[in-house]
Amino acid sequence: MLTVDGPRLLSALEELGQIGAIEGGGCARLALSDEDKAGRDLVVGWMKQLGLAVQIDAIGNVIGIRAGQEKGGREKIAPVMTGSHIDTVRTGGRYDGNYGVLAGLEVVRLLNDSGVETRRPIAVAFFTNEEGARFQPDMMGSLVYAGGLGLNEAYAAADKDRRSVGDELRRIGYLGRAQPGVIRPHAFVELHIEQGPILDEEKVRIGVVEGVQGISWTEYSLTGVSNHAGTTPMRLRRDAGYVAASVNVFARALAREMGGNQVATVGALSLRPNLINVVPNRADFTVDLRNTDDDKLKEAEARVAAHIADVARAERVEVEAKVLARFEPVIFDASLVDRVERHAQALRLSTRRMPSGAGHDAQMMQRICPTAMIFVPSVAGLSHNVKEHTEAADLLAGAQVLANLVVELASE
Amino acid sequence: MLTVDGPRLLSALEELGQIGAIEGGGCARLALSDEDKAGRDLVVGWMKQLGLAVQIDAIGNVIGIRAGQEKGGREKIAPVMTGSHIDTVRTGGRYDGNYGVLAGLEVVRLLNDSGVETRRPIAVAFFTNEEGARFQPDMMGSLVYAGGLGLNEAYAAADKDRRSVGDELRRIGYLGRAQPGVIRPHAFVELHIEQGPILDEEKVRIGVVEGVQGISWTEYSLTGVSNHAGTTPMRLRRDAGYVAASVNVFARALAREMGGNQVATVGALSLRPNLINVVPNRADFTVDLRNTDDDKLKEAEARVAAHIADVARAERVEVEAKVLARFEPVIFDASLVDRVERHAQALRLSTRRMPSGAGHDAQMMQRICPTAMIFVPSVAGLSHNVKEHTEAADLLAGAQVLANLVVELASE
Repeated sequence: MLTVDGPRLLSALEELGQIGAIEGGGCARLALSDEDKAGRDLVVGWMKQLGLAVQIDAIGNVIGIRAGQEKGGREKIAPVMTGSHIDTVRTGGRYDGNYGVLAGLEVVRLLNDSGVETRRPIAVAFFTNEEGARFQPDMMGSLVYAGGLGLNEAYAAADKDRRSVGDELRRIGYLGRAQPGVIRPHAFVELHIEQGPILDEEKVRIGVVEGVQGISWTEYSLTGVSNHAGTTPMRLRRDAGYVAASVNVFARALAREMGGNQVATVGALSLRPNLINVVPNRADFTVDLRNTDDDKLKEAEARVAAHIADVARAERVEVEAKVLARFEPVIFDASLVDRVERHAQALRLSTRRMPSGAGHDAQMMQRICPTAMIFVPSVAGLSHNVKEHTEAADLLAGAQVLANLVVELASE
Repeated sequence: MLTVDGPRLLSALEELGQIGAIEGGGCARLALSDEDKAGRDLVVGWMKQLGLAVQIDAIGNVIGIRAGQEKGGREKIAPVMTGSHIDTVRTGGRYDGNYGVLAGLEVVRLLNDSGVETRRPIAVAFFTNEEGARFQPDMMGSLVYAGGLGLNEAYAAADKDRRSVGDELRRIGYLGRAQPGVIRPHAFVELHIEQGPILDEEKVRIGVVEGVQGISWTEYSLTGVSNHAGTTPMRLRRDAGYVAASVNVFARALAREMGGNQVATVGALSLRPNLINVVPNRADFTVDLRNTDDDKLKEAEARVAAHIADVARAERVEVEAKVLARFEPVIFDASLVDRVERHAQALRLSTRRMPSGAGHDAQMMQRICPTAMIFVPSVAGLSHNVKEHTEAADLLAGAQVLANLVVELASE
């Protein structure tokens, strides 16, 4: 077995973490920003040092390819691909995304150092704008790669300052020539921190990810009437804030009642005029619902919508709803998922099968090739937070599972 | 009987409403702003045209005094005082405050035009910063006048841009020399729009105000833990936004259950980080509770506090509470309240006894002299809103009740 070099992997994570470093130990490398460019340049430099052929595609995805034994002729042999992303949210951690990319490079380094040639090429990729913190939709690079979003639509996506993905790709020098998706992998495996508390809480070392929860994001805008908080009897109120609050309370009760992995969150909310002594005439808020079972997700959506309609009618508040995102659950390749589990168990690491609650590039890749994910614990489940942390031993354990699986896949 | 001159009163309201006029028909004359100064200058000019002796006190309250028959010696005879305020909220209406001041001047005009001398002097006052929209506390001028707030404390109150009441009074030329409260009125009567929907809904012309509801304003700051909305199971959440929502829903149910004139409002709320896919780790919100019965108000306060404590404990969210304002209910002078009712009924105007849900300068004046208020309807109860409106017939009816009561009081 090729054994992952712990200090080497940790020092690469540390070095990439210095780019866009922010107070508290986190990173801010928003997609296609100067910091993202600096991070990309660093990782591309490492790829070249490792002898990888670096391909940049038209959405800025970067793929470093280590040649396999079989060079093939016109019918090129499909590579095994691993990777993730290196962009971050505004208050991101050091491991989210970066870990999967740098662990992939560590696998290449191990093979190089030991002079091992694999039958299939091995590709290490980082995809553009996974986070969606600056440009929507998130998972943009992998979505384009898998054919789910056209290039022109992706280029037109603009940030708050009206700078577009197309312009920013050109500006930072990552508008590549390759057609996204031209390389169809034999398999794709993504190693990632859990970004949730389950493994940490249960003291399990490796999460065997069976799929990704379906996501339903709806933005509601409620319009009532603003009135004096002292002089308006309760029965005459048309309080948009009250209706919004009742949705939050209902969503919590609904998730508890449905159980399983149903989750429901009201994360964003703003009231107008937002004054202590005025009944709010406007409430804008979001409802985030997720489930691995699409029928149950639809049930949750319908029940939240029915609740809002009922309470809004009673309060004489108008409701506008806008679907911001709707992804069906993704089920990873069962056989590849089994192999993640087997490799972890062979290393005597405790495992747990689980869905991913967060979106990942892997869910897009599953559209075009057998895909699986490996999770490692996040301390206290913190994510998108400068305090995001994974213990070194867990980082190494996950990288070792990845190495063993990738090498096995590459020998097929 | 001296009959109020309708067109003259309406035209004065119209002219004052032009100063700081904003789209939709309302006014923005925040206390001690340039617009407030312009409004003050206009009204002071009118006072002087009417021959009133204008006294400006050290908190900027302006009192125009029409001499009585008895000039008195060292023991001056106490004047009858009426008035209100002319500052507005940022999106204020044209009648809130202004109506009471200009109706007072109309009473003086009537007496002047008919050459009537009253035994007691008649004073028309406008008090500084009633609204509290720029500087806290609200009702500042009348509170200082009644001895409830020291001058230095009032001077130190600062707006968001750190400009203080003292500096702004000096800047606009309204830092007067008179000691606030030096004139102790025989009685104080304030005429005001209801700012609520009750009179309009019940088609009653005159509200006979028996007192002012007690007010309890509390700001809560809840601290939980921000976590990924997809990956964090419901049972592990520490969602500050959820606790805030449950308080809003509880407060509504509580007010309904307690009945009477108990009202409860969550008017201001902000979440952090306020992102669709992040469990809020922070919620800052306000609870506004009011009742005419202080024991019931205390009960409401205690039950809201107990609810927050319970839910926050279950959610493992920390609670900080800060009392922003707490005024006990005010009961107006019973005999003066009776006289308001009698004068309205003598004019064959329908009446209704009611509390004021809003705060008014009159509640401060009740501390130093017999005080009462006269309410006229607000269409649809809209207030602190550019659509605030009172029908002309109602404006005149209220002013006539005021005139008759003030003239009677001044003859005593």
